[in-house]
Amino acid sequence: MEHLECIFCQKKFPLDIFDPFCPQCREPLLYPAPQKKRSFSPEKSLPLEKFLDFLPLLRVDPSLSLGEGNTPLLRLDHILKDFNLPPVFVKNEAHNPTSSFKDRGTAVAVQKAVSLGMGRIGTVSTGNMASSTAAYGAKAGLETLVLLKEDTPFEKLLLTGVHNPKLIRVRGDYGELFTKSFSIGRRHNIYFMNSVDPFRIEGYKLTAFEIFLQLDRQIPRFLFVPVSAGGHLAGLIRAFLDLRREGLAPFIPIVVGVQAQGCSPIAQAFASGKVKVERIKKAETIAHAISNPDPPAGNIVLRMIRENKGMIITVSDEEILEAQRILAELEGIFCQPASATVLAGLLKLSKEMKMDKNDPIVLVITGSGLKALESLKSLKTDALDSSLSDLEGTIDSLLT
Amino acid sequence: MEHLECIFCQKKFPLDIFDPFCPQCREPLLYPAPQKKRSFSPEKSLPLEKFLDFLPLLRVDPSLSLGEGNTPLLRLDHILKDFNLPPVFVKNEAHNPTSSFKDRGTAVAVQKAVSLGMGRIGTVSTGNMASSTAAYGAKAGLETLVLLKEDTPFEKLLLTGVHNPKLIRVRGDYGELFTKSFSIGRRHNIYFMNSVDPFRIEGYKLTAFEIFLQLDRQIPRFLFVPVSAGGHLAGLIRAFLDLRREGLAPFIPIVVGVQAQGCSPIAQAFASGKVKVERIKKAETIAHAISNPDPPAGNIVLRMIRENKGMIITVSDEEILEAQRILAELEGIFCQPASATVLAGLLKLSKEMKMDKNDPIVLVITGSGLKALESLKSLKTDALDSSLSDLEGTIDSLLT
Repeated sequence: MEHLECIFCQKKFPLDIFDPFCPQCREPLLYPAPQKKRSFSPEKSLPLEKFLDFLPLLRVDPSLSLGEGNTPLLRLDHILKDFNLPPVFVKNEAHNPTSSFKDRGTAVAVQKAVSLGMGRIGTVSTGNMASSTAAYGAKAGLETLVLLKEDTPFEKLLLTGVHNPKLIRVRGDYGELFTKSFSIGRRHNIYFMNSVDPFRIEGYKLTAFEIFLQLDRQIPRFLFVPVSAGGHLAGLIRAFLDLRREGLAPFIPIVVGVQAQGCSPIAQAFASGKVKVERIKKAETIAHAISNPDPPAGNIVLRMIRENKGMIITVSDEEILEAQRILAELEGIFCQPASATVLAGLLKLSKEMKMDKNDPIVLVITGSGLKALESLKSLKTDALDSSLSDLEGTIDSLLT
Repeated sequence: MEHLECIFCQKKFPLDIFDPFCPQCREPLLYPAPQKKRSFSPEKSLPLEKFLDFLPLLRVDPSLSLGEGNTPLLRLDHILKDFNLPPVFVKNEAHNPTSSFKDRGTAVAVQKAVSLGMGRIGTVSTGNMASSTAAYGAKAGLETLVLLKEDTPFEKLLLTGVHNPKLIRVRGDYGELFTKSFSIGRRHNIYFMNSVDPFRIEGYKLTAFEIFLQLDRQIPRFLFVPVSAGGHLAGLIRAFLDLRREGLAPFIPIVVGVQAQGCSPIAQAFASGKVKVERIKKAETIAHAISNPDPPAGNIVLRMIRENKGMIITVSDEEILEAQRILAELEGIFCQPASATVLAGLLKLSKEMKMDKNDPIVLVITGSGLKALESLKSLKTDALDSSLSDLEGTIDSLLT
């Protein structure tokens, strides 16, 4: 019998795939670490198999994989030089199958769904998670239900629709929809793998394990990650706690969660010393992928961040767009505005605190710029027009 | 002194980075295989380093990499079952930094540019190659010039523009622009790494080496690849010839180049037994990324395909869209129409010829569907609308 645990009530409860929340305090439940000694299997090529010991799975069915993980860790040499920083690396999760980090979590949750014999999965999402769940559901041959906000743009709908899930746009409060999905799931036998699903969160750990191996078994001093529902950050911290518990690493990084100023409920609670995140009324930011006014794992994030000496900071839309531009122009990396928050956060924090020149910093890029082209609509490109016969003169005028 | 060779004139010429064409017959020159024994370095993590022996580079500068390669090989279980085929795998090159196979070639050409001390690079492109070259040029800190067709849509312009290259839309004949770019490059010291650049072509070999290793050092019986300018197919065949030459593989696959019916100059020449590809007048296909009416490596492809018992086939736009749909709905893979040609080609060929049940087939997916959303504009998604209170009933009506 599998159990989940509540880190607030410090109790374990039998796994109920249709309601992964604490029966007492209604906080999201997490998958407890096993008693046994765990280790990596570096000879395996599939990340799920390489880190199987650290996952809530008995075995991995490779036929359910879309090739998630094995993403690059890139050193940002130009930014280092221009901003006089310690070694900064980007872990680029946009290289995943549906171009966002969500695939890490979906991959594990779908393995679980199939191992439990579930024929139906679902998700409530505004974007990245929808297309990820639809793609993995298709690959696994599962009946897949995707519930989207009423105002989801047609283009976002398409990215999910291509995989032919059952797709419903729902009018009404998004937080209520999130809660309601679980009761509907129980009655209709649909495993809703939403943002704070405990198996999804375990999947996010693999990003941290890969960073650790890519840094030659070194732990970064700082790790920056965008924060929305909170599941991603929770998974990353849990991975470093696992490494410390297994004696593989002496400490865990200072994890810096970054939110957009226009939607920063967790940062606000962190700044004011509260233990509970309060829902904010109006969310308004260009970083749509992290615009969550009522983050379900907000309290978990607050607690984990405080217990492990991390922090939650905010950046403005202007800082986000500037960071997106810097990454694209200086480092050749085109990411979503939500992902650019990590560089914006680093540039902000590096002005406020001293960073040791020898301490590596890792920024987690969560999604591709291709999935948020609307953020560029206002960008004027400096393209020139020229005829073939005038071309040489035009080029001449452009070169430095 | 480095040399390039003409496979038609069978002569070698000193490398001229500004004009990689045969001085005698004007066909594209290729990088000759060295005399020395070559082998893989599997302990390296960067693909450029793992296969360095097979590349026209003395060393690799990791700081120029954007994390190209290490792309997944996925088995298409549902398609196998539904269409009663031998084991079919997809090599998904959409997992590259700018979401297309072009990054494999750009990565090598940019290494070469830097090793030669070039400060300026350029390309002539209609899409994928433009964003790839702009991204790698940014990462390397090179002045980068991108020449685009006059009618390039604003959205495609953006994908390149984010990296801030010098961008010019050129009025006039595209083939003429391709030719003219080299003479301008010489006068202005710009290394134009266009579609059939010899270093680019060597970069494409790495895809084949990875397939070989991912199949546990087995050679696929068939390899399907979309064909546009011809450089990609040429690179893949050269990789398998390398493996045979080094005694690593006993034979090379039957390479099947696939073109769209609406733009199939190489397939037409192949079918009619000609040795030279004739430029076609009007290109009209939904597969924009392979719509090249005057492919510069067309004659090379014809010769390589004939010498190695491959074939060039065509598929219709309907077959392409159907294959794109099948990949997305049954296998969770969302690719460009140009990439879906490989599955369309397999489905067509499998009706016409017997394929042995034990012979693995590999389809090379060249680019992400995210880069060609316009192909979906006509797709009607079956999204339903529902209020929160009606949701359960709506879901009930949808479930099978």
